Amino acid sequence: MISNIDHLGLAVHSIATARVFYEEVLGLTCEAEEEVASQQVRTAFFTVGQTHIELLEPTDPTSPIAKFLENRGEGIHHIAYRTDDIEAQLATARRQGLRLIHESPIIGAGGKRVAFLHPKGTAGVLTEFCE
Amino acid sequence: MISNIDHLGLAVHSIATARVFYEEVLGLTCEAEEEVASQQVRTAFFTVGQTHIELLEPTDPTSPIAKFLENRGEGIHHIAYRTDDIEAQLATARRQGLRLIHESPIIGAGGKRVAFLHPKGTAGVLTEFCE
Repeated sequence: MISNIDHLGLAVHSIATARVFYEEVLGLTCEAEEEVASQQVRTAFFTVGQTHIELLEPTDPTSPIAKFLENRGEGIHHIAYRTDDIEAQLATARRQGLRLIHESPIIGAGGKRVAFLHPKGTAGVLTEFCE
Repeated sequence: MISNIDHLGLAVHSIATARVFYEEVLGLTCEAEEEVASQQVRTAFFTVGQTHIELLEPTDPTSPIAKFLENRGEGIHHIAYRTDDIEAQLATARRQGLRLIHESPIIGAGGKRVAFLHPKGTAGVLTEFCE
């Protein structure tokens, strides 16, 4: 079952530059900064209610985020939904004929179990499940 | 002050097609469908925790959403933050040198007072304040 939006991933060229808006204009607090080596990104998380804004800055030109920035520029990269049973959620998606990027969960930022669905099948939205 | 993410606006060609993912895979419930004549869109709202997913389907080829679909295809269109004082929030944004699309609030879906910031200045994210 989906309980809430866990976070929104935003692709940025520079966390140092982008964070000014989230801190100074929205008044949010950065609760964690972390490098996720498997995705070649640096992340910064800001809490807003039940959800977080995750700024994603590539650490390498071959990072998926670097490619996103090259193709589309800065902007919203993905929506992550929190689920209490990621395997069940993936099974439902599979049953509905959706294309999964991860057939089984991988470890994402904060040590959470996560899996991505392909934007084809979700009206163009890269969607993550997060347990 | 920003309390939470009020909704995420997703641009879609067809609400009828896109809603299947939100209802059948995510298990969300549509709580309202509404046409917003001023924006030439039809909207459908799905609740997920404190937030809503707002599907946006253009009702006219000159709609801002029709132009977004033409340029970028289906995907995430904007993030809306709930504030208890939209004028104060706009004043803070103005002080930080951000470009405002609406200098003062307009009436959006559900009769809420809303205002948009230009994505230039927010790392490419079309951002809405919503009171």
